[in-house]
Amino acid sequence: MSTRRDFLNKIAMSGITLPLMSTVQPTEAINITDYQGPVLRVAIMGLGSYGTRVAEAMRESKMAKLTGIISGTPAKIKDWQSKFGIPEKNCYNYENFDNIKNNPDIDAVYVITPNALHHDQVIRVAKAGKHVICEKPMAINAIQGQEMVDACKKANVKLLIGYRMHFEPKTLEIIRMRSDGELGKVLFFQGLAGFRIGDPNQWRLDKKLAGGGAMMDIGIYAVNGARYMVGEEPVWVTAQETKTDPKKFKEGVDETIQFQLGFPSGAVASCLSTYAMSNLDRFFLNGEKGFAELQPATGYGPIKGRTHVGELNQPHITHQTVQMDEMAAIILQNKKPVVPVDGEEGLKDLKIIDAIYQAVRLGKKVDLKL
Amino acid sequence: MSTRRDFLNKIAMSGITLPLMSTVQPTEAINITDYQGPVLRVAIMGLGSYGTRVAEAMRESKMAKLTGIISGTPAKIKDWQSKFGIPEKNCYNYENFDNIKNNPDIDAVYVITPNALHHDQVIRVAKAGKHVICEKPMAINAIQGQEMVDACKKANVKLLIGYRMHFEPKTLEIIRMRSDGELGKVLFFQGLAGFRIGDPNQWRLDKKLAGGGAMMDIGIYAVNGARYMVGEEPVWVTAQETKTDPKKFKEGVDETIQFQLGFPSGAVASCLSTYAMSNLDRFFLNGEKGFAELQPATGYGPIKGRTHVGELNQPHITHQTVQMDEMAAIILQNKKPVVPVDGEEGLKDLKIIDAIYQAVRLGKKVDLKL
Repeated sequence: MSTRRDFLNKIAMSGITLPLMSTVQPTEAINITDYQGPVLRVAIMGLGSYGTRVAEAMRESKMAKLTGIISGTPAKIKDWQSKFGIPEKNCYNYENFDNIKNNPDIDAVYVITPNALHHDQVIRVAKAGKHVICEKPMAINAIQGQEMVDACKKANVKLLIGYRMHFEPKTLEIIRMRSDGELGKVLFFQGLAGFRIGDPNQWRLDKKLAGGGAMMDIGIYAVNGARYMVGEEPVWVTAQETKTDPKKFKEGVDETIQFQLGFPSGAVASCLSTYAMSNLDRFFLNGEKGFAELQPATGYGPIKGRTHVGELNQPHITHQTVQMDEMAAIILQNKKPVVPVDGEEGLKDLKIIDAIYQAVRLGKKVDLKL
Repeated sequence: MSTRRDFLNKIAMSGITLPLMSTVQPTEAINITDYQGPVLRVAIMGLGSYGTRVAEAMRESKMAKLTGIISGTPAKIKDWQSKFGIPEKNCYNYENFDNIKNNPDIDAVYVITPNALHHDQVIRVAKAGKHVICEKPMAINAIQGQEMVDACKKANVKLLIGYRMHFEPKTLEIIRMRSDGELGKVLFFQGLAGFRIGDPNQWRLDKKLAGGGAMMDIGIYAVNGARYMVGEEPVWVTAQETKTDPKKFKEGVDETIQFQLGFPSGAVASCLSTYAMSNLDRFFLNGEKGFAELQPATGYGPIKGRTHVGELNQPHITHQTVQMDEMAAIILQNKKPVVPVDGEEGLKDLKIIDAIYQAVRLGKKVDLKL
């Protein structure tokens, strides 16, 4: 079965990438034994392959610790209990997880379930008075996203979206260069995001669970990337859909969408989202004075980057480890990330995705106000 | 003054490209002294910088020879006469060049004048009974292009368009790989074509002479490249225009256009044409089994290319020298090029460009039948 996770894992090894770096261990700066500050105690909801990746990465985390699990599969619960040392009292299923509100061992829940489930699950977690981290897309449309933002605000809990690239060192270096003016006026962004999806029966190809197709799963990297690379919010979008395999990609499940964004400064973005093509993971940002390229741009790493002044050499660190440390700091210490990862940030992407689908349906430009 | 020619010249030296190869001399295969076959005797119309480049490249050509010139500037005529040894009787101006029909020293005229002049000039050359090579774009719209094709057919002369990339070795190797199935089913093409144009007073920024803006001058490389890289004719086009400097880029002169093409197989193309951004000269072709990249893709060289199996190592040869040799063989020996360079080929690009401008105006998808 080929999933985005497999793809993001493998792309660094594909022919399209620059030569492989050897796998780099988490940075030395993360030293668990020395750390004495507060720790975010996290329950993971959804014990699939990405949930496992996050749990494994959290072992190296300084400020975040896995203390609970929520799953509908008793065998997985058992397995995780032994693997991660989770006590019985911190294990929940989808019927009883509202009781988490009475559990003092859990500060936050990381929701890593199919897209269409996020809305209800996040709201239930908020109502239980726990902070929420939710995988992207935060929901399947902006109406849902807004309700989630509102519910978390009302419950006075934080809502963060799993934008791990917002903490990736090469990405951050390009954002720094751009905002320090080193690229000059930004003119053009290009985002290619795609892979060939395998098993036709997986939830990502089920409209009811995924809320869409490639756009929801991998295209969102280009949507989000366009915004943090250009450093502006788009004011219009156009989009064109192509479907070559309507049997695999049923009604409402997009296979390939090209979309274009226009920004207030006059910068434009040209992006591709696809479940039909291998090896597409490239960001390119062009300014009046220079350029920046990431390829792979959003895989699990190592990310490779270069600019008009040369290769980027920031070390690779496990994305999910850094993400959990940074998110713990945001929740526990009100740390402000360079690029937001809150519910409003996730909502903006959903508004753009809604507009992309609308532009496909209408066959014309759709104006945006984010 | 920055023109496309300057740009195409310089891009190989820019930061965005791969390391420079040393300048390679024309291939050894071209050995003027050994060649005993027929020679195409060519007059150049329009003695500007690109005309000069073609004339210089023809010095190394085996099968094409500069024998005449047509210019409105007597000083240029004098200069060229001495530089290229052109006799007085083979020199014409724009009033009297119809007399070329009585000149047995000239087989063909290469029209290298502003775009909007091509239509009338090509038809006049055809009526004078000489073969015509015409720089691209062959005209400023498809109606003109069709009239030129018809006029040359009627006059029983050949009409070729200056598509030098159709003879470029790395380009041809990718076309061979694609048509031999080495890339698998072709899914995606991306063409970036642009540079920052200088002098606001040059003819390329004058709608009356250029017939448009960047699309006519540099965007056409992506239009044409999409077709020969994908190996199909597009069936729809969408396009979005952005103008950040309406003073420099007046009504009817496009600064930046993104356009997308759909092909019968389901392959899609995503392209950018711009006069506002530096260093954009990249083609990327993605298939089910592999990919091919050219960067720079259309500059005067050396072209750099790589595919999923590695770097392309075909030697650089002066594009215009090869083009003139090949075009002489097409005209004199009915040689069939791998990718056509005839009037119908030029007309297809104009039909697409007409549709791109229409798609910008209408703000919606335009169907194509080529």
